[in-house]
Amino acid sequence: MSFKVIRANILGENDNAAGDIRARLASGGVFMINMISSPGSGKTSLLEKLGPVLEKNGIRFVIITGDCFTSRDAERLDRLGLAVVQINTGGACHIDARLVDASLRDVDLGKTDLVIIENVGNLVCPTDFDLGEDLKVAVLSTTEGHDKPVKYPMLIRKCALAVINKTDLIPHTDFDMDICERSINELNNKAKIIKMSCKTGEGTDILFEWIKNGIQKKKESAK
Amino acid sequence: MSFKVIRANILGENDNAAGDIRARLASGGVFMINMISSPGSGKTSLLEKLGPVLEKNGIRFVIITGDCFTSRDAERLDRLGLAVVQINTGGACHIDARLVDASLRDVDLGKTDLVIIENVGNLVCPTDFDLGEDLKVAVLSTTEGHDKPVKYPMLIRKCALAVINKTDLIPHTDFDMDICERSINELNNKAKIIKMSCKTGEGTDILFEWIKNGIQKKKESAK
Repeated sequence: MSFKVIRANILGENDNAAGDIRARLASGGVFMINMISSPGSGKTSLLEKLGPVLEKNGIRFVIITGDCFTSRDAERLDRLGLAVVQINTGGACHIDARLVDASLRDVDLGKTDLVIIENVGNLVCPTDFDLGEDLKVAVLSTTEGHDKPVKYPMLIRKCALAVINKTDLIPHTDFDMDICERSINELNNKAKIIKMSCKTGEGTDILFEWIKNGIQKKKESAK
Repeated sequence: MSFKVIRANILGENDNAAGDIRARLASGGVFMINMISSPGSGKTSLLEKLGPVLEKNGIRFVIITGDCFTSRDAERLDRLGLAVVQINTGGACHIDARLVDASLRDVDLGKTDLVIIENVGNLVCPTDFDLGEDLKVAVLSTTEGHDKPVKYPMLIRKCALAVINKTDLIPHTDFDMDICERSINELNNKAKIIKMSCKTGEGTDILFEWIKNGIQKKKESAK
């Protein structure tokens, strides 16, 4: 062949960066989760509830929050004194691993137990991008309807945990928790389900225990 | 040059198909809107309310509904006897114009006043794909929070109409209508805003009038 072929390989480049991140986090015993949801399902509100509980329990963590343009979520979390790095995707529909890699350069991983990625609000595209995380967390909300697992199965199949948020609003909607849970189980019988309300605080302690368990397992595997 | 260059030009191919669709709809005087929203904002519920009103008023219409995998929305609309074509994107995050073109082949445009596209639930990607529509309609819902226009400005800048759905749930949330409306106006001072509730029926008549007006204008321009 007399000419060079340059292949556009966006997912390949992403996966290389994700592999590098995963190796660094493994050697440091740092647990990382990738939170994915629709816009407005309550990821930031959930972190506003969870962050202080993590701090009270001495867990050293950083939140990487993705947004198309603004820094609104980062500002909300910063107001609580939580360590946060803002990624602006410039309109792109997902965070990619190179952006996470750049965000982690300013983080002292030797003094970090946990990284939480709050992805761009989008139930479709972020699922395709490995960010080097240990586990994916799906955040659904009751006001979106109980049919979302069936309609957006890609994320449910890949997630280790499905949070069903806004349980306080169930009495005002047609949401059927049994149908929602059953359809999650049918798509992924290994996914844990946690029912949460950022209004009442329901589920925050269970989520904290799930994360603490993840951190412990990661530290043990790094020894 | 001694070799042929094949360029992947996905948006270019989409735009060619969109142009063809637009020309066909223009000559037939058929009005087409492209409804875009987050998952679970209530597009299908809105169409369940609107469809019978359109029928009662003698408007001949077809709904093209996009979904990653299922036919759930089409089944809901079909149950009401509404004319509906289902597009399954096979996991893709948006409908493209070639899919709309294929869907319209089975539609008798000579006997159609209105085409409503219900896009895949995604507040980011569908905005980039021209489907040959006359106007884009953003559907927001109060439970997603009043910050969505600012956080997802791409769609708001391009839409002719922003529906703010689920107004019945406002008393149970922190949603601030003034902030939401102001931020839509700041991004796009030409966008009309309609407040709706698929529970109480609020706004259905205003939406019907807006659509009827669009159909009339389109028919006049085709004469």
